[in-house]
Amino acid sequence: MSTYNPVTTRLLSFHDAVDDFISGKDTPRDYLERCIATIEDREPDVKAFVVMDLDAARAAADASTARYKSGTPLSLIDGMPMGIKDLYDTADLPTQMNSKLFEGLQPDFDAASVYALKQGGAVIIGKTTTTEFGLGAAPPTRNPFDLERTPGGSSSGTAAAVGASMLPAATGSQVGGSIIRPAAYCANYGFKPTFGALNRAGGRSIAPSGSHLGTHAGSLEDMWQAARQIAHVAGPDAGHTPLLGPMTLPKARKPQRLVRMYTGGWELTDEMSQHIFEDLIDDLRTAGIEIVEPDELPVTAALEASFQAVYPYAASILGYEMRWPVREYCNKDASKVSEVIHQRLELGENMTADDYQRALAFKAKLTSEVAAVAGFADGFISLASPGPAPMGITSTGNSAYQVPSSLSGMPTMTLPLLASEGLPLGVQIGGFHHGDATLVAHAAWLRDWRLTA
Amino acid sequence: MSTYNPVTTRLLSFHDAVDDFISGKDTPRDYLERCIATIEDREPDVKAFVVMDLDAARAAADASTARYKSGTPLSLIDGMPMGIKDLYDTADLPTQMNSKLFEGLQPDFDAASVYALKQGGAVIIGKTTTTEFGLGAAPPTRNPFDLERTPGGSSSGTAAAVGASMLPAATGSQVGGSIIRPAAYCANYGFKPTFGALNRAGGRSIAPSGSHLGTHAGSLEDMWQAARQIAHVAGPDAGHTPLLGPMTLPKARKPQRLVRMYTGGWELTDEMSQHIFEDLIDDLRTAGIEIVEPDELPVTAALEASFQAVYPYAASILGYEMRWPVREYCNKDASKVSEVIHQRLELGENMTADDYQRALAFKAKLTSEVAAVAGFADGFISLASPGPAPMGITSTGNSAYQVPSSLSGMPTMTLPLLASEGLPLGVQIGGFHHGDATLVAHAAWLRDWRLTA
Repeated sequence: MSTYNPVTTRLLSFHDAVDDFISGKDTPRDYLERCIATIEDREPDVKAFVVMDLDAARAAADASTARYKSGTPLSLIDGMPMGIKDLYDTADLPTQMNSKLFEGLQPDFDAASVYALKQGGAVIIGKTTTTEFGLGAAPPTRNPFDLERTPGGSSSGTAAAVGASMLPAATGSQVGGSIIRPAAYCANYGFKPTFGALNRAGGRSIAPSGSHLGTHAGSLEDMWQAARQIAHVAGPDAGHTPLLGPMTLPKARKPQRLVRMYTGGWELTDEMSQHIFEDLIDDLRTAGIEIVEPDELPVTAALEASFQAVYPYAASILGYEMRWPVREYCNKDASKVSEVIHQRLELGENMTADDYQRALAFKAKLTSEVAAVAGFADGFISLASPGPAPMGITSTGNSAYQVPSSLSGMPTMTLPLLASEGLPLGVQIGGFHHGDATLVAHAAWLRDWRLTA
Repeated sequence: MSTYNPVTTRLLSFHDAVDDFISGKDTPRDYLERCIATIEDREPDVKAFVVMDLDAARAAADASTARYKSGTPLSLIDGMPMGIKDLYDTADLPTQMNSKLFEGLQPDFDAASVYALKQGGAVIIGKTTTTEFGLGAAPPTRNPFDLERTPGGSSSGTAAAVGASMLPAATGSQVGGSIIRPAAYCANYGFKPTFGALNRAGGRSIAPSGSHLGTHAGSLEDMWQAARQIAHVAGPDAGHTPLLGPMTLPKARKPQRLVRMYTGGWELTDEMSQHIFEDLIDDLRTAGIEIVEPDELPVTAALEASFQAVYPYAASILGYEMRWPVREYCNKDASKVSEVIHQRLELGENMTADDYQRALAFKAKLTSEVAAVAGFADGFISLASPGPAPMGITSTGNSAYQVPSSLSGMPTMTLPLLASEGLPLGVQIGGFHHGDATLVAHAAWLRDWRLTA
């Protein structure tokens, strides 16, 4: 029986260790060794990593230590131990995507984001587990707060490693709910920036128009600063706007008005978790924040209706786009592709070009409906999942709270503000396209308000 | 001294051979053997191919022959011998991009377009040469109409193979002028569809927001039908509208009003070629087509001004986007990256995120200015190059006539309607976004009007 308490639980953070690196009281190498000690303790149960290279990590940490000693750290994340979700290429570690078809695949180059993190001095410990291609069979990873439960997915290993304080931060990616949901199940701060804000080149998504690259961390500072470092060096996806804002965590800002997002998630939410969230809403109102119910305004009512209607369109877009390369994966060896992926592909194979255009038209409407709310509110709020992490590890839980915002491309986050059944329960907040720094400033206010006595 | 005559010269076509495949008078295998005989004759001089697999091609042609015999051809291009530009992955041939860094690289899967062509029964003969990464050092390929001259680039081998009638069709790609210019120099029909209309997955562009996949052919029918087959099976780029229209060549349609595009190309054009184009314009007017000078209308004047201003923005976008992966190529072995690529990268390295946003904002304005003309005219017309193919093979010629339309994403084509100095001189026509089938219908009318006695 887990007894997680959001106020007293603190996961590992990195940003607050840097002063000691500068003064010489601590070093990145010592910080890394503490991470490795935790990994040795927890990893045999949690199974967050596909592969690690501790020799390389120690060498990178020593180089970082030398830079601090000479007063020349490369960035705010110099020396930060990190994991890379195993859908993104690394030149010195394989990319296997939890697929038997890709066992042992060794890419020639780092993904743009990995390159950017290394340029900033990050210490890459290894590749973190994912569901197959980010959308199929679950990995063997377990929730660090209750080993009988899923850590969520597809960014399973990233969420679990951060949740177990094996790492201060790691990368994730989300088409449906693959950052926010596992982050919430594992008490991470999880960040899905505006679509396109972080360069995905060198990632192997099978859902190109929907996949977002993002970050998970034990602290809001590290979550933001790792993402900002990626944007700083690697920029956005081609043709998109990069993640903008200060290199350090944006200053806390109190939101004035937040719109509740029910989506298809609320009706799936267990009664206890609903009650816990309603209490939070009451507390927010008491704190002077106006909470808008969707039916109060025409623009929010229209948006909520689309949020409820989003699921078949999202599944269609995904199924259509994955036809290539999954058709070829199946041609190579269909027996090495999971049943879930086969089913998703079948949906795509039954679609016409017109069906795809229809789904994209819905997505364009949804995106404009989000933008239309910007004049009426500061952002959005909901739970991050229909309850705490469910039992078992073959399913990674339900993404109903994320699919709507993911399809719109708006930025979202989860904060570990709540608990239910003694397990982490995340709060999802959303912002407007390219308003990522404002979203994170709201997150800082909510964190300080709720978690700092 | 070449004495190319656009009216009497006919390159190899495939669509008109199909009736004989069906009747049994001819077979795809015999068609292929005729291509191979031409290849044996011309390839030692022209050097259009990086690599060929004639055994595999013969096996594919035999399979196609059997399908026609049993009355079950897979598509309109079943049995069509084709080349694949060496920037796109092929599972059974290497992808080397004219880069020493990628010598012998063997991909695991076919690109989406290659998959689509194979699904339609196309007979892949080999990979056609490209400039380095589509943007750098030129390959050893020569113009089939004058071996002392460039075939153009970056789709050098595709254009030359089609121009030499070694193949009826092949794939090309264009960021600046890499389809239209070489196609024009080699008397091909060349087609750059609307941005995103053909799925580029499995291509290795270093300019993701600007690269277009397209087709080159000896006939308008084969150019269209090969492109349409790609869209039919592989769809568009994720998030975009696929190439729409009939599977066979759209019916010829006479354009009523065409806007002249001067761009930065006209002032670079030699006097003789200017004169030849002005004669064509006069002939079009005599044929009852209204030719609009840009300064006649506010919308066309605004667009032409942007066409003239486009070049630094296009270079900026390219330089910024290529930072990854070219930084990593240079890290691996900078000596294997050409000086041209180093220079383009340097431009990108000197840019800020704001510079990139500024260039994208220009591109968005340009795109809307193209759309604004749609109510006033049926399309656009210009030369496809500032003259016939220049002497020498270290430079692949000037792309000034293409960069403006490429940056806008509008569909363009070149038709081999003219000659200058006894060499092919192409005519470029342009259409409106997603109006690809209409553009090609105009092309069919122009071809029938000009080349059919």
